[in-house]
Amino acid sequence: MSTIAVSYAAARTLTVGPADTAPPGPGEVEIEPAYVGICGTDLHIFHGDMDARVKTPAVLGHEMSGRILRVGPGVEGWQPGEPVTVMPLRWDGTCPACRRGHQHVCQNLDFIGIDAPGAMQQRWVVPAGTLVPLPSGLPLDEAALVEPTAVAVHDVARAQVAAGERVVVVGGGPVGILIALVARSAGAEVRVVELSASRRRMAGELGLAAWDPAQDDIPALVSDWTEGAGADVAFEVSGAAAGVTTAVDVLAVRGRLCQVAIHPAPREVNLHRFFWREITLVGARLYDRGDFERAVALVAGGTVPAKALISSVVPLAEAATAFEALEAGGDVMKTLLDCSDAATGGAR
Amino acid sequence: MSTIAVSYAAARTLTVGPADTAPPGPGEVEIEPAYVGICGTDLHIFHGDMDARVKTPAVLGHEMSGRILRVGPGVEGWQPGEPVTVMPLRWDGTCPACRRGHQHVCQNLDFIGIDAPGAMQQRWVVPAGTLVPLPSGLPLDEAALVEPTAVAVHDVARAQVAAGERVVVVGGGPVGILIALVARSAGAEVRVVELSASRRRMAGELGLAAWDPAQDDIPALVSDWTEGAGADVAFEVSGAAAGVTTAVDVLAVRGRLCQVAIHPAPREVNLHRFFWREITLVGARLYDRGDFERAVALVAGGTVPAKALISSVVPLAEAATAFEALEAGGDVMKTLLDCSDAATGGAR
Ligand SMILES: NC(=O)c1ccc[n+]([C@@H]2O[C@H](COP(=O)([O-])OP(=O)(O)OC[C@H]3O[C@@H](n4cnc5c(N)ncnc54)[C@H](O)[C@@H]3O)[C@@H](O)[C@H]2O)c1
Ligand SMILES: NC(=O)c1ccc[n+]([C@@H]2O[C@H](COP(=O)([O-])OP(=O)(O)OC[C@H]3O[C@@H](n4cnc5c(N)ncnc54)[C@H](O)[C@@H]3O)[C@@H](O)[C@H]2O)c1
Ligand SMILES: [Zn+2]
Ligand SMILES: [Zn+2]
Repeated sequence: MSTIAVSYAAARTLTVGPADTAPPGPGEVEIEPAYVGICGTDLHIFHGDMDARVKTPAVLGHEMSGRILRVGPGVEGWQPGEPVTVMPLRWDGTCPACRRGHQHVCQNLDFIGIDAPGAMQQRWVVPAGTLVPLPSGLPLDEAALVEPTAVAVHDVARAQVAAGERVVVVGGGPVGILIALVARSAGAEVRVVELSASRRRMAGELGLAAWDPAQDDIPALVSDWTEGAGADVAFEVSGAAAGVTTAVDVLAVRGRLCQVAIHPAPREVNLHRFFWREITLVGARLYDRGDFERAVALVAGGTVPAKALISSVVPLAEAATAFEALEAGGDVMKTLLDCSDAATGGAR
Repeated sequence: MSTIAVSYAAARTLTVGPADTAPPGPGEVEIEPAYVGICGTDLHIFHGDMDARVKTPAVLGHEMSGRILRVGPGVEGWQPGEPVTVMPLRWDGTCPACRRGHQHVCQNLDFIGIDAPGAMQQRWVVPAGTLVPLPSGLPLDEAALVEPTAVAVHDVARAQVAAGERVVVVGGGPVGILIALVARSAGAEVRVVELSASRRRMAGELGLAAWDPAQDDIPALVSDWTEGAGADVAFEVSGAAAGVTTAVDVLAVRGRLCQVAIHPAPREVNLHRFFWREITLVGARLYDRGDFERAVALVAGGTVPAKALISSVVPLAEAATAFEALEAGGDVMKTLLDCSDAATGGAR
């Protein structure tokens, strides 16, 4: 009987090997992952962009759903068979950020799936404190979208989106679309700005109007839409320099820009407009437990139509092919890896 | 009997001519300015940097104190002889910003002293609604510091500075020093970062510790000072690209950067750090009436030691010389123009 794990070995190289099946230690739980999403950060690691941070071989994966297999000594309140997802954060509890109650941005945060082994394996041991329960009726493929939905919930809260506000989401990838859906569920009117025609079409299928920054004059469209006021909130979820400019240029007096995307290099920002219009920029990173629980409810309740965001489901053993397809881009939103024996060819 | 006005005519050219002595119209008040401060914006205009906006000849000046001479028809509650300052804003009341209650950042704001004639003259007619009363015991030279103090009050409020917080002010010019003083009066611990040795010395004389960014590793000093946490708040009041970097680099997790300075060009900003530490940037512009009234109280009560900030007082008729001296820099903080007859050589 053998179980498999997918590891990042070096730039553009994923290897398939045996999963670690050591029993869970005190306070730990062993999970059988069902589905694992591939996210932009996983792709960055795959490209080799994060080799300074990632210790190889590294099992990737932090967007997941699964079931408890075994609980370690001293773990209470969890039973084998229960469906769960994992909030993949470990903070030190002692740094200045933790002492002020901001554990999710701990100055020494370990992100499980980057700094510690992730979920792209058939057995996964995590601290019991990271578990988040899933409703039994929620299909596990949909539940793999809970983690990115928690990002969106956090971001919409950081931007303090209120009912009736006009919101522009710059970048209609999975995170941008989830932010748009969560903002809409908060009562906001939402427009998405996205370069890719296929992603604009996918946004449209979810009832989200989407504009093309390569064709349209976005600030002019927003000005018309808001009777000259500008948008109350803009989310920068593209990671592109041009996306930052768009987000700044559409905002109203006292508008809020929520910075979600990761910008590897400094960007030119029109600080004069921040002064002139008294705009606020709010950085947003990850989520806390409340965001995760709210994300479970949004996915389970159908407010976030997770099924519609899943472009393809690929067997875990074929992860390398799935990463390469995602890299190539095209008509794809979210790809899941299926960790089941059946999918991986009954490996054990 | 003649009164004089100083006008900006063209780049680097100020002319002295007669003041407009037309009687105040309905709802207007005629003032006899006593002292007018020269601010950085006036210098920008003098350099010719704002020729696209300023209609020549333009009487400059918006930091002032004076006494009411005459009130126009329908003006109630104001008497000749009363000491006043002016909040030099005129909003349209109808734009989206005004309708949301943000009149001071009206989308069509007129700033008196830039877009309409300012206070560098011996007679000045303004709408009665712009008047702010001064306590009779407050010397009028000190009262000329009320306007920049109102800027500082507004900025400290925008940054939500709280007692016990650690605050870094980047740029120790008049505005930065006033922000430092107002933040200190709110109970914050303050450090100033300033390139000029003479301005660091002036800060020191006010009890404000000041660091030299050309010599010191500012982020390291702030980290030591805050036991590794970083500053709660940074004010960017330098207007320099390097000042932005310093302000971003000193901030704690969830720190707030208040953007006060005017950056004529876009600046490179480390947005990754905004994301990583969930930092907030808040644009701050001008003030509202509440800020102005609080500024009067701070100057009158001595919390803002206005006398100590006044480097020199120059007769109005010699404004050109004063502008040139300010341009040259050196050992100077705030220069006032004295509008009295005696100072201008008893012109009338
Ligand atoms: N804040 C967080 O905690 C957090 C969590 C997850 C992901 N992220 C970041 O969020 C960003 C988005 O993630 P994703 O998975 O959706 O990535 P993605 O790359 O799939 O989506 C980005 C989208 O932006 C579009 N785009 C590029 N330039 C644009 C422009 N100028 N205008 C409009 N659209 C443009 C692209 O076509 C793409 O569809 C990434 O930077 C990711 O690292 C942040
Ligand atoms: N937000 C508003 O409503 C408002 C109102 C008034 C003034 N302002 C702006 O505030 C800024 C400051 O005004 P001021 O009158 O004090 O100007 P100032 O030019 O006298 O002061 C700026 C100071 O910053 C210092 N400096 C320059 N580069 C630096 C660096 N890298 N690090 C540290 N210090 C540096 C300079 O030596 C100078 O002392 C200006 O940009 C002005 O236009 C804004
Ligand atoms: Zn911590
Ligand atoms: Zn207005």
